[in-house]
Amino acid sequence: MKKVLFIFTLSVMAPMSYGQQPAETVSKIIALERAALERWNNGDVNGFLEISAPDVTYFDPYLDYRVEGLAKLAELYKPLQGKIKVDKCEMQNPRVQLAGNISVLTFNLLSQSGSELSRWNCTEVYRLEKDGNWKIIHTHWSFTKPELK
Amino acid sequence: MKKVLFIFTLSVMAPMSYGQQPAETVSKIIALERAALERWNNGDVNGFLEISAPDVTYFDPYLDYRVEGLAKLAELYKPLQGKIKVDKCEMQNPRVQLAGNISVLTFNLLSQSGSELSRWNCTEVYRLEKDGNWKIIHTHWSFTKPELK
Repeated sequence: MKKVLFIFTLSVMAPMSYGQQPAETVSKIIALERAALERWNNGDVNGFLEISAPDVTYFDPYLDYRVEGLAKLAELYKPLQGKIKVDKCEMQNPRVQLAGNISVLTFNLLSQSGSELSRWNCTEVYRLEKDGNWKIIHTHWSFTKPELK
Repeated sequence: MKKVLFIFTLSVMAPMSYGQQPAETVSKIIALERAALERWNNGDVNGFLEISAPDVTYFDPYLDYRVEGLAKLAELYKPLQGKIKVDKCEMQNPRVQLAGNISVLTFNLLSQSGSELSRWNCTEVYRLEKDGNWKIIHTHWSFTKPELK
């Protein structure tokens, strides 16, 4: 029995020793996103900037065109620093699709500031960099089922 | 002079012999998307279904939640088959970010049906499959700067 247990333990544990395994990566990606959101909700835009790659591309529903590159994204966010206060925020149904050094994180977000509730669709494409850190190379924020004029 | 030309030709041509090079991949991804759009604009939803992977995930602004998997996406598209007619469509500023076996295509789209003009942000994450074909593993369509009620 001990031998069976030992073999079982080895077979479960062994893959964990070879760097990042899928479940570990999934948790890591979601944790990175949650940490950046937490900072954002308290007025700190640098959380997202710090985990975005130099070649990041970015869509949100307030823009006419895609933003290209970290410097441009920083310019866009700069006026918002210290001005955001989200009271309640819920990441719903996050999913990570892994493919080589890329993780595609998608989720819905419920965000409440005062009495204003907003619903979002979000796509974040993370890339594993040579230094072992995951960085966002593409962000797409949009409204969930917006009611148009 | 002939020798210089020969060396130049070799240095330009050589990389092309090692499978898909970046420029070649970029053109291929954009061509795949354009072909599927062309079919869509003429009422054929199968163009996108044929280049989507079994594990595709999907957001568009008419949905409350993310669609998961090709079967569910086919269900969503089925009622639209033969019913779409887009008169004019312009893919603007397409960009492909390459990372390993993943290509992230982003673009804006102007789409006109009769007098109705719509503007879109689009993200398509393509994955190079083992059979050598690129398939979409994630789609995010949203309105560009929607005017909300």
